[in-house]
Amino acid sequence: MTKKRVAIIGVGLTKFGELWEKSYRDLITEAGLKAIKDAGIEGADVKELFVGSMSPGLFAGQEHIGALVADNAGLTGIPATRVEAACASGGIALRQAYTSVISGQSDIVVAGGVEKMTDVPTGIAMTALMGAGDEEWEAFNGATFPALYALMARRHMLEYGTTIEQISMVSVKNHANAKHNEYAQFQYEVTLEDVLNSAPVAEPLRLLHCSPITDGAAAVILASEEKAKELCDNPVWITASALATDTLALHDRKSLSQTNAAIIAAKEAYRRAGVSVKDIDFAEVHDCFAIAEILAIEALGFCKIGAGGKYTEDGHTKIGGERPVNTSGGLKGKGHPVGTTGIAQAIEATLQLRGTAGKRQVKGAETGLTHNVGGSGATAVIHIYEKD
Amino acid sequence: MTKKRVAIIGVGLTKFGELWEKSYRDLITEAGLKAIKDAGIEGADVKELFVGSMSPGLFAGQEHIGALVADNAGLTGIPATRVEAACASGGIALRQAYTSVISGQSDIVVAGGVEKMTDVPTGIAMTALMGAGDEEWEAFNGATFPALYALMARRHMLEYGTTIEQISMVSVKNHANAKHNEYAQFQYEVTLEDVLNSAPVAEPLRLLHCSPITDGAAAVILASEEKAKELCDNPVWITASALATDTLALHDRKSLSQTNAAIIAAKEAYRRAGVSVKDIDFAEVHDCFAIAEILAIEALGFCKIGAGGKYTEDGHTKIGGERPVNTSGGLKGKGHPVGTTGIAQAIEATLQLRGTAGKRQVKGAETGLTHNVGGSGATAVIHIYEKD
Repeated sequence: MTKKRVAIIGVGLTKFGELWEKSYRDLITEAGLKAIKDAGIEGADVKELFVGSMSPGLFAGQEHIGALVADNAGLTGIPATRVEAACASGGIALRQAYTSVISGQSDIVVAGGVEKMTDVPTGIAMTALMGAGDEEWEAFNGATFPALYALMARRHMLEYGTTIEQISMVSVKNHANAKHNEYAQFQYEVTLEDVLNSAPVAEPLRLLHCSPITDGAAAVILASEEKAKELCDNPVWITASALATDTLALHDRKSLSQTNAAIIAAKEAYRRAGVSVKDIDFAEVHDCFAIAEILAIEALGFCKIGAGGKYTEDGHTKIGGERPVNTSGGLKGKGHPVGTTGIAQAIEATLQLRGTAGKRQVKGAETGLTHNVGGSGATAVIHIYEKD
Repeated sequence: MTKKRVAIIGVGLTKFGELWEKSYRDLITEAGLKAIKDAGIEGADVKELFVGSMSPGLFAGQEHIGALVADNAGLTGIPATRVEAACASGGIALRQAYTSVISGQSDIVVAGGVEKMTDVPTGIAMTALMGAGDEEWEAFNGATFPALYALMARRHMLEYGTTIEQISMVSVKNHANAKHNEYAQFQYEVTLEDVLNSAPVAEPLRLLHCSPITDGAAAVILASEEKAKELCDNPVWITASALATDTLALHDRKSLSQTNAAIIAAKEAYRRAGVSVKDIDFAEVHDCFAIAEILAIEALGFCKIGAGGKYTEDGHTKIGGERPVNTSGGLKGKGHPVGTTGIAQAIEATLQLRGTAGKRQVKGAETGLTHNVGGSGATAVIHIYEKD
């Protein structure tokens, strides 16, 4: 397969947090218009849009999200499609937009993500989020997502000697990065002691190991190589998009301490982009729980399976380290509006490759990767980004 | 643009109806496995899947549908994506699968649709369905879908003199067709008097003008031209896929008696396939309410705007008429499991072009069209099918 590339020519992000004054449609419209402005194009230039959203039916009483977004952004008429893969919905939207461009169907496409999670009772939010797991085998029997990730953490600790301190260092690092991200929900640092002493949620996971409930939206403008060269001085190229699946229920997998969908998708992404792990200068990964970042860096091959705790402890994933991970603050520090996350990750990759990430900048960054996961790992979608 | 074509090489449908003994995952797995068998391929040949489902979060407490389907069909590992555009979710899944094939990403792709609507209280089903409209401007103020389509019917009657008898003839015709479809929810005829005397729902619409609540699933196997020639003796070719949008809320539109998204998508589909209305031998259209079929045949150009009532009354849309519409029984007779409908329409088109539609067969059919709508018309997705 020849290496196909699609450009990111514009990005737009809302503040992440508890945004009581903004509705679902306010959020996605704000992000989309920012992205259009950033790209220096007009709404009329947009040929198609894809939007990732996990559970707007439960969170906002609204489905039919593609048409809603086209309508509210003043783009009525264009093809508009919502995609969903639980917390990987944003990454899937990016993939569909990329596919539309390489298919020749549309040459300028918006990929957006949106979730409004705070404006419902906690019970409904929990029901909605548990929709990412297996309703018949997990949700029905009382499992919650902290519980599922706690099982993975326990198993990782047992098999590889990973310590709770190492897991906690993920949260400490990501909060430290979020401090420098004006869009982040939590712009403050936490200490290792803060994390270890925070309230237990599902042992061994404590509150500061868990990403929060967040409102927020994000959008990127993609363009064909030809259009990008015409419109943009600093395109960031998506050079691979890979998606893979695993069993929906955790208990059906051969291993609780490896994420196979991510392992498959990572290999496929490296193959498609024609790069290897050594070429990756930074990554945004799906740290919905702190253990998930350790599982992610192992699946991506940044270190051997089982060595993610040590790799984190040794500081390799910090800004200034061998391969910085979650410079944005990650899901833990930046916040996790579930359907938005995959697009927000692409935006951080774009800022890094444009060299405009400010105090979070990875020096000399030329190639980046994003890793977006649905549920306990049943969906993994990975993109690779390069600059000219 | 060169004419791109993608083959349908296999189809699978479940019985439509109130299927108390079958779960959401049972339904889509059954349809998917039937389609794989019909194509004469193995599961391992499938490279990617797309599934349309409108509101499984509310109907079944389950999101993350792509991974669920891959898992339950024994296809764990492959890329799997759910798409949603309310009642057009199935049509959108077909479009994404088509795009994946023409992009060169995957050469054998499943497009499925599934909805399990009967196993929840009526109030939840109504909330879910109203998610297809505008939550802030329509649902919040008490509008329901029968009410929205009743407004369109009243306006059509006022502007064009369309009679309630003409609207009712849509139901009579579609029930007559459904009688010969073993998969249909209602395999029986109704008379014009039955329709006119059925219980009022939202005047002028009565019960027999409204499609039912239905459980059911459908799947088709798509293949690239090269793969299809290798695997299949009787491919049916999708020669155009077009999607367009309109405002989400009915009151925002310039006209209540025309469906603009369908008008835009139809023009685009004819252009892409290089055919005109005259070439269309039959169509499956989105008759969620009887008036919707009249709006559809006008948008598709089968007759002039405003003449759909007369065109129906004159028998042109009956089997044996000028251009048979909804030979399957349509949403009214066959049933309307919302996310499934777009795929079920593609299956009827395939059977017609294979010449295997039995008593519903349109003689000499060479070119067909499907028209799938979300909400009150905010999404319209149109496909054109041809045989060799």
